[in-house]
Amino acid sequence: MKDFTFYNPVRVHFGKEQLAKQTDELKIYDKILLTYGKGSIKRNGIYSRVIDLLGDKNIVEFGGIGANPEYETLMRAVELGREEKVDFILAVGGGSVIDGSKFIAAAINYKGDDPWDMLAKYDKFDSAIKLGTVLTLPATGSEMNSGAVITRKSSKEKLAFGSPLLMPVFSILQPEFMYSLPDIQISNGIVDAFVHTIEQYITYPVNGAVQDAYSAALLKVLIEQGPKVLENRSDYDANANLMWAATMALNGLLRTGVPEDWSTHMIGHEITALYGVDHAQTLAIVLPGVLTVMKDEKAEKLLHYAQNVWNIDTSDANRAIELAIEKTESFFNSVGIKTRLSDYDIPESAIGDICKKLEQKKYVKLGENRNINPEKVEKILKIRV
Amino acid sequence: MKDFTFYNPVRVHFGKEQLAKQTDELKIYDKILLTYGKGSIKRNGIYSRVIDLLGDKNIVEFGGIGANPEYETLMRAVELGREEKVDFILAVGGGSVIDGSKFIAAAINYKGDDPWDMLAKYDKFDSAIKLGTVLTLPATGSEMNSGAVITRKSSKEKLAFGSPLLMPVFSILQPEFMYSLPDIQISNGIVDAFVHTIEQYITYPVNGAVQDAYSAALLKVLIEQGPKVLENRSDYDANANLMWAATMALNGLLRTGVPEDWSTHMIGHEITALYGVDHAQTLAIVLPGVLTVMKDEKAEKLLHYAQNVWNIDTSDANRAIELAIEKTESFFNSVGIKTRLSDYDIPESAIGDICKKLEQKKYVKLGENRNINPEKVEKILKIRV
Repeated sequence: MKDFTFYNPVRVHFGKEQLAKQTDELKIYDKILLTYGKGSIKRNGIYSRVIDLLGDKNIVEFGGIGANPEYETLMRAVELGREEKVDFILAVGGGSVIDGSKFIAAAINYKGDDPWDMLAKYDKFDSAIKLGTVLTLPATGSEMNSGAVITRKSSKEKLAFGSPLLMPVFSILQPEFMYSLPDIQISNGIVDAFVHTIEQYITYPVNGAVQDAYSAALLKVLIEQGPKVLENRSDYDANANLMWAATMALNGLLRTGVPEDWSTHMIGHEITALYGVDHAQTLAIVLPGVLTVMKDEKAEKLLHYAQNVWNIDTSDANRAIELAIEKTESFFNSVGIKTRLSDYDIPESAIGDICKKLEQKKYVKLGENRNINPEKVEKILKIRV
Repeated sequence: MKDFTFYNPVRVHFGKEQLAKQTDELKIYDKILLTYGKGSIKRNGIYSRVIDLLGDKNIVEFGGIGANPEYETLMRAVELGREEKVDFILAVGGGSVIDGSKFIAAAINYKGDDPWDMLAKYDKFDSAIKLGTVLTLPATGSEMNSGAVITRKSSKEKLAFGSPLLMPVFSILQPEFMYSLPDIQISNGIVDAFVHTIEQYITYPVNGAVQDAYSAALLKVLIEQGPKVLENRSDYDANANLMWAATMALNGLLRTGVPEDWSTHMIGHEITALYGVDHAQTLAIVLPGVLTVMKDEKAEKLLHYAQNVWNIDTSDANRAIELAIEKTESFFNSVGIKTRLSDYDIPESAIGDICKKLEQKKYVKLGENRNINPEKVEKILKIRV
């Protein structure tokens, strides 16, 4: 097992009617920036419940943070937050709103010229506005971690950054909020949480027994509970299980002491940046390719996965690995997510553009062994057309 | 699933040579109370390493905190801490030293007459000295939770208390420290972590899919890794896996949203208070009795346990449950922990005394359904002679 530090001070309030029950959380703040997305919280009633909760608090609103939150939009919120001297951000939404709010939180206090440098130039920052979240969509785990992914439209870049300063002070997870989500967002959430787990699990073995067992256990929960949510959208327990699983998939616990891959995410980000495909859909396209092309290096963990997640007989190792990858792709399809570039009208000729974008990056060598170069990415994507 | 709040801000530093690497953690404190046990840290060199680490820090020492840390001893540390106006406690040891240090931390700032009232009368407290830990013995999970169990010799009481104020600021987990432990402490640690998991798992089902899967996964890790540590006491990965598993067994995660039992602990505490048997040994005696007497109420979860932990065919439910309980007891025996009252020279006549002590308690009705009364305790212990 590798050495690690684990630190996650997010206070998670989980369950029925939690929004109404956790009013104390906002007591100590004076001026709150309320952030949200494109307006679904106004249609489903969550917005008015939040406004009621805030009572006579001094609040400033910033709506309109879309999927793949954009630097250009977020900078307007930064300006607003600076002008209004907000001392807390309450993010109400899914991973995009929360990620965007993390950027706003760091950028308001950022001393350099352009907050984008925190992402593009890894510029360090030592302060951020505190934030809390009301999660409306389980998927990214952003409600219980320190990271965020932001897109810059002008340069078609999609970059990640993070800091313990960006851990939410609290996150309210109320599974009932999932009832009114479109099916596609549930499907995306299942795949997103699934691939988050895989990125921390299917690498090379370091004998992290708890981590391997927890990763396999979480994948089985997603395989079992995800379809239940899609079958009965108001099954409280199934929704709660999916929500908690998605949070657990990326709260730092699975990655303790083990190597991490993240090549599927990095390649997927380029597809989203160039072609606007949903994040989770890009993961469903890329992952089977990564697992296939890298199967020799990942063999031991792929066998663990085949046996412990899919209950596959591993006496023929090669066949077991192939079958596990097939089952992975079938699972994505079964929850309504297509897995081929052509399913999203991306032509084979796009592969060159994706590789070119990656070549411009500092982290052009991806994967747990840092050996997935643009040539390998090409190989990965060629079997995903 | 039940509603819950999860909050665990402990910063865990885990791995090789972590003690030497984490010197920054003590920077902001002025006067440190260094607490430890009966002197094993002086024999195995950890004491001198800690003293080196502390450098020119202003420290006050308090050694001699034994197993089942005693109020009478701890109150001397409280007096010392008050006199010396310490602003931090560094606990170096296992669960007993850490539990004792939590009591000291709360008692130093306690405003009432007798700090024992925090335990005996559930008297609330709103401040505590901050503490950090260097864990030398994995078992209790105290290094990453808010609870402690303290014994009062004069009244033969063993009581629990807790508060988020008592969460360690940091905990240093260095698996190499386990190499010099006596075998019996490893064996006790395995059983303690095992029963902690069971207390949060084998109750009644509430469809907490992640929690059930994680509990089963953790038990399998203990079954697999525990014997490995005993076979080769300097197998780093096996030690690390046992240490991390024991911490994960009681850091609040498994109990999120599910009922909890704890009757085995409550009955076991009385056996320790009256007869001085090691904590883990009392758990190994009591647990098979609780599972047997309560098997109808616990049937669904016992079947989950039989199937997912022991891979038992559950077509004959009664037989599967019996077999799972047998395998539990055999596992305890296999790691060197005896499981009968007579193994510890406790006569059958003692059962009356144990039940009498429990009758004096406010929590005389134990278990997840609060229906284990002294009559049932008698029944449980009668099959454990």
